[in-house]
Amino acid sequence: MSEEIERKFLLNELPADIATWPQPAAILQGYLQKDQHKDLRIRKKGNKYTLTAKHGTGLVREENEQEIDKTLFDILWPFTAEARIEKLRYTRVIDEGEMVIDKYLGDLSGLLLMEVEFNDEQLARTYSPPLNFAKEVTDDPRYRNAALAAHGTPAI
Amino acid sequence: MSEEIERKFLLNELPADIATWPQPAAILQGYLQKDQHKDLRIRKKGNKYTLTAKHGTGLVREENEQEIDKTLFDILWPFTAEARIEKLRYTRVIDEGEMVIDKYLGDLSGLLLMEVEFNDEQLARTYSPPLNFAKEVTDDPRYRNAALAAHGTPAI
Repeated sequence: MSEEIERKFLLNELPADIATWPQPAAILQGYLQKDQHKDLRIRKKGNKYTLTAKHGTGLVREENEQEIDKTLFDILWPFTAEARIEKLRYTRVIDEGEMVIDKYLGDLSGLLLMEVEFNDEQLARTYSPPLNFAKEVTDDPRYRNAALAAHGTPAI
Repeated sequence: MSEEIERKFLLNELPADIATWPQPAAILQGYLQKDQHKDLRIRKKGNKYTLTAKHGTGLVREENEQEIDKTLFDILWPFTAEARIEKLRYTRVIDEGEMVIDKYLGDLSGLLLMEVEFNDEQLARTYSPPLNFAKEVTDDPRYRNAALAAHGTPAI
């Protein structure tokens, strides 16, 4: 089990230097369950399959992840039909921790979200993002992936 | 993937010779998802943990089962809070296939269901149960475990 300390920002555009970042990973994910307080997700990233339980909302969330095999993923996938997401994930290490930009595809095409995962809570509180962004959405439940998968892109 | 051919009966009482059957197994199970057409279940039976997807209703159902480890079971269990079942399962081999009697515990205490799993569909159609039973409930969706877990014992 691990705790995530992260802030989330809605971007207007990809960073100008995105071509110099490492190649993005194609992610396919679906939700087996989701409500206001917890969600249960499966994900395919390259040839790696994971199941992740998240509890809590906002800045600090508890996360419990385990790798699963393709057979189990294939059994579970039909149960995610109502809530799926496809995206390209750009990832870069920064001084404060890790910067992740998700470029959504499919129904959510056009949506760009940046998450910064911090090494500690103090860094999270004082951080100011270098990029041009529309607004911070850390505490906006409409921008949780489970909500995006179910309800689509929020009106700003 | 396998296909189950089974019929289900509501019993008034345990068979008189139940003491001569093999020892029953304690089963704890919970549903991650359930609707009219499919359900996704996890189960602990002794020290064995399984995840099972079922599609379809009635006499012939498609079933997809995989063993999982305790770690994954423990991650999934909190997501079954709304739909859990505890029961003792008596199992005996018979000429036509296998006879299973579930004695429900907890909220469903008092409920006794017998399932007969048949080696082929012809046997299933001609079978007549030797026991005193209240009624056949093969096609009654209220007696599916997922429904029992959510709504409790049906009124006859």
